Amino acid sequence: MNNQDLRVLKTIENIENVFFELLGSKPIEKITVAELARVARINKGTFYRHYLDIPDLYMKTMQKDGVFAEYYHVNNADANLFLMPDDVSIEDALMTTDMMSTGFHAVENAEVCYGDSVVVFGIGPVGLMAVAGSALLGCGKLYAIGTRPNCAALAKEYGATNIISYKEGDIVQQILDLNHGPVDKVIIAGGNGQSINQALQMVRPNGVISNVNFMDPSDSVNFPAILWGLGMSNVSLRCGFCPGGARRIERLIRMIQAGRVHPGKLLNYKFEGFDKIEDAFKLMDSKPKDLIKPYVLIG
Amino acid sequence: MNNQDLRVLKTIENIENVFFELLGSKPIEKITVAELARVARINKGTFYRHYLDIPDLYMKTMQKDGVFAEYYHVNNADANLFLMPDDVSIEDALMTTDMMSTGFHAVENAEVCYGDSVVVFGIGPVGLMAVAGSALLGCGKLYAIGTRPNCAALAKEYGATNIISYKEGDIVQQILDLNHGPVDKVIIAGGNGQSINQALQMVRPNGVISNVNFMDPSDSVNFPAILWGLGMSNVSLRCGFCPGGARRIERLIRMIQAGRVHPGKLLNYKFEGFDKIEDAFKLMDSKPKDLIKPYVLIG
Amino acid sequence: MNNQDLRVLKTIENIENVFFELLGSKPIEKITVAELARVARINKGTFYRHYLDIPDLYMKTMQKDGVFAEYYHVNNADANLFLMPDDVSIEDALMTTDMMSTGFHAVENAEVCYGDSVVVFGIGPVGLMAVAGSALLGCGKLYAIGTRPNCAALAKEYGATNIISYKEGDIVQQILDLNHGPVDKVIIAGGNGQSINQALQMVRPNGVISNVNFMDPSDSVNFPAILWGLGMSNVSLRCGFCPGGARRIERLIRMIQAGRVHPGKLLNYKFEGFDKIEDAFKLMDSKPKDLIKPYVLIG
Amino acid sequence: MNNQDLRVLKTIENIENVFFELLGSKPIEKITVAELARVARINKGTFYRHYLDIPDLYMKTMQKDGVFAEYYHVNNADANLFLMPDDVSIEDALMTTDMMSTGFHAVENAEVCYGDSVVVFGIGPVGLMAVAGSALLGCGKLYAIGTRPNCAALAKEYGATNIISYKEGDIVQQILDLNHGPVDKVIIAGGNGQSINQALQMVRPNGVISNVNFMDPSDSVNFPAILWGLGMSNVSLRCGFCPGGARRIERLIRMIQAGRVHPGKLLNYKFEGFDKIEDAFKLMDSKPKDLIKPYVLIG
Repeated sequence: MNNQDLRVLKTIENIENVFFELLGSKPIEKITVAELARVARINKGTFYRHYLDIPDLYMKTMQKDGVFAEYYHVNNADANLFLMPDDVSIEDALMTTDMMSTGFHAVENAEVCYGDSVVVFGIGPVGLMAVAGSALLGCGKLYAIGTRPNCAALAKEYGATNIISYKEGDIVQQILDLNHGPVDKVIIAGGNGQSINQALQMVRPNGVISNVNFMDPSDSVNFPAILWGLGMSNVSLRCGFCPGGARRIERLIRMIQAGRVHPGKLLNYKFEGFDKIEDAFKLMDSKPKDLIKPYVLIG
Repeated sequence: MNNQDLRVLKTIENIENVFFELLGSKPIEKITVAELARVARINKGTFYRHYLDIPDLYMKTMQKDGVFAEYYHVNNADANLFLMPDDVSIEDALMTTDMMSTGFHAVENAEVCYGDSVVVFGIGPVGLMAVAGSALLGCGKLYAIGTRPNCAALAKEYGATNIISYKEGDIVQQILDLNHGPVDKVIIAGGNGQSINQALQMVRPNGVISNVNFMDPSDSVNFPAILWGLGMSNVSLRCGFCPGGARRIERLIRMIQAGRVHPGKLLNYKFEGFDKIEDAFKLMDSKPKDLIKPYVLIG
Repeated sequence: MNNQDLRVLKTIENIENVFFELLGSKPIEKITVAELARVARINKGTFYRHYLDIPDLYMKTMQKDGVFAEYYHVNNADANLFLMPDDVSIEDALMTTDMMSTGFHAVENAEVCYGDSVVVFGIGPVGLMAVAGSALLGCGKLYAIGTRPNCAALAKEYGATNIISYKEGDIVQQILDLNHGPVDKVIIAGGNGQSINQALQMVRPNGVISNVNFMDPSDSVNFPAILWGLGMSNVSLRCGFCPGGARRIERLIRMIQAGRVHPGKLLNYKFEGFDKIEDAFKLMDSKPKDLIKPYVLIG
Repeated sequence: MNNQDLRVLKTIENIENVFFELLGSKPIEKITVAELARVARINKGTFYRHYLDIPDLYMKTMQKDGVFAEYYHVNNADANLFLMPDDVSIEDALMTTDMMSTGFHAVENAEVCYGDSVVVFGIGPVGLMAVAGSALLGCGKLYAIGTRPNCAALAKEYGATNIISYKEGDIVQQILDLNHGPVDKVIIAGGNGQSINQALQMVRPNGVISNVNFMDPSDSVNFPAILWGLGMSNVSLRCGFCPGGARRIERLIRMIQAGRVHPGKLLNYKFEGFDKIEDAFKLMDSKPKDLIKPYVLIG
């Protein structure tokens, strides 16, 4: 690494540190580039060489380079590493760290319980895991919203009782008709800015809406008060980020060992070798109609 | 009651019944006057003689006439009536049925626990009860937002550690400064359309925002996704309506009997006699600076 | 009914009423026949004509005559009756009212969650339902203790990963070996006075023991303090009685409708006709090796 | 340290390690001195030179030498150390680490909520903190059982509504009379082997009994099944050990900072200087009638 690269790294580190410091004392909305530049003792131009704006900086600081490497650093290894048991396949184990943990977290946040009617928006990998996780908490009717045929087939296998497609008409109306009224819980694991609005139209008073959909910094949550019972409906809106840690992974692994769920079925494109990572990304970008999730086997 | 009055009553009953039937199968947004009139077999003109629009109908069906009367009908009396014990004052008992039940419900929904830092928006009667209820769950710092002097004094007496006034500057920044960072729980028992937005700026990840503020049918909830961690912050938004029932009132009464709370202190204007009801309403309308809550003692 | 019968009924009603009154103000242990007779204004001899002792009275007041009849009275019908949907079999529906409700209640009390290792004592009808209910909350390893072959086969079908028999050695040691240490939750749905003691030896600190086994009035709970960590192990002992009510039955029915559980499989002996009730009881008394649960179809 | 001392230390370390290993795979009841000696490759005589029996070994391994020293080692300092804020007295802060944490844990385990009637057995330091913790969760009637006058006075100050003394008659009967029936929750923070039995006689169905009383290895839990509703009463028996950790201490400290509780009032005997430790222990041994808790201020 030459001196110039080092200077850039130091600048970025400086900007990020100041950003974290500011975030500790005020909401992101109140942080301006001017203030950040002043505290970091840089020109605003220096900031804009690396970031579009504050939300762009936010997104970039959430990421850590270097996972696509032969070796990489695990933060807090004592708390985060879990020894993979022999009786669990690589594919199943791999899915526990993100898709399964996130999908099941959505179900936990939704407080799904025996007999609940549940809607899951989206049947991508996380949505499919939310379907499996809801069935594994003993829900009743389980409506999965999506259109891709092999995702729909896997949703059925994971426990969905009905597949709902926007092609068949308004999804809110379809679900209200099928369920003979509003549902107990709604999980948003896909969709768009309208999804919360639609969720509010299909959930019963005292129900829960649980979001694990990653929103865009330009998105906003926006719904008329009357859909929230003028603030009196007892409907909870919850959201969450993939929980990790060895103890959680252990619990997910135990369900796999007991044969209750097979998350590895999400992986329907396989690549072998370090040099295939780029191909895998291209595949994700081109999104062939039958793709659920690809993986690259290394070493 | 003459025949014409009876016809009007039957028309209103018919409209309300059809409205409730439609509400059971679709969200309020999807109900039109045209559809309601068709199902109810009335002209739209008949509808508009009694209601402005569907939200107006919604508001009116939430109310029941006849409480300001010598006798009135209690729905499900077995479940709702509770014998007032001798050792509880009329003022304390009166407050259990709405102000205390609602304020404490806000605290329950916020899942306040030992040591939590809590913000309460609004120090009207419900907000003051949310202050008392938070202190009674062992919270730590308790920030009450409001300006009226005697409400502020009562908030302090009920357990608030700090009174925050918009007159002293931006309330978000004041709280972040005093608390050295975001708080655990935010209760909205007053304020305006901006309150949820402000609450999101002062609550920590994994925190809860609990609303018991009655919104206007024209209001909307509207915040940028980034304030909700792009849907990943684990912040829950909950809302709720005053819970009732004899068993709940009994629990509130027991706290009063044990001397843990004195909700009757909210009542700082007293009227005596059935004919003073109008005066009491006029007082509520004119809102003298020192008013918390008036009451009318009858019989 | 003649006058003498009426007098007997009135006497029994009197005794029961006084008993309930006394139970409201003191524990059953402190109620004596002498006191009861005094308050009820009867001779002790009158008491002993109908009951052996206070525990016998307790047992008899829990029961209500007349269920084996063409018509019978349902208490609080509004809250307790639920319309059986067309798509649920008589056998499945029948099991919701007791076996399934009780077995699932045991699981709820045990707070079974994703990945828990669970032991179920007993694979009679309630134990089998506790097995099904644990699998439906996403448990991991699920050890069912019992020996009857077709019960064991059904336990496997309902989700048990291991069948444990006392014939294979000490059950505590077998489970500790298979699980590589203590389990998270233990459900007691069968067994004897030793079961709690054994449960304490196989549950981990912070675990839960959940009992739905009906004990005999002569039984006692008795274990050395060291098995409870000298009162410091954070192990909870919970117990419970079959919960009822239309809303609960509805939830259980919804799981059946979604195809998640088939409780009707418990019913492996079928009788038809009112006059076969006695045969069914004789069957339950003789307990053929393959019996799980008989039922009588009437009308 | 001479060679002989070193050998003894190594022997003890060896015995403890083998003991922990055995505890991981079987309950303490199943561990014999013979087995332990065999695995540890020592004579049973060597074991008996250091321990009376297995329970004695258990007790001794729970302790760690060296706290009464100028410097001592804190396990997992990152997780366990919390910086004492300036606005909290030494006395208040000191009590958070054991008395307050344990007493409040008893209340948490009892799931005390708004309006609950609560009984606390014992008004020593932990019991007094359980009284304060129950009041801080908004309980109603709060019965504290004990006789020492200044403990009783402090119980009142901390929120007890009634002091119950065995000198006034049977405590079960006294509480049932005062409460007009059984209570919601019972906390055992003192007492003897009879306390759980008495608790079962005063708690309502669906209630909770929460124990934080340290039992003797020779104690047992023993009650007739009928007191537990023949295993159907929905009464939970829970127990627990003082929870620690910086985050918990922080929460307790925040309550002190907000002025909601003053645990330092437990400390009514003060010693100054390292050489007074022995005097303090002698005081605890002689138990003068007015003693609540002594402390030694060092440095």
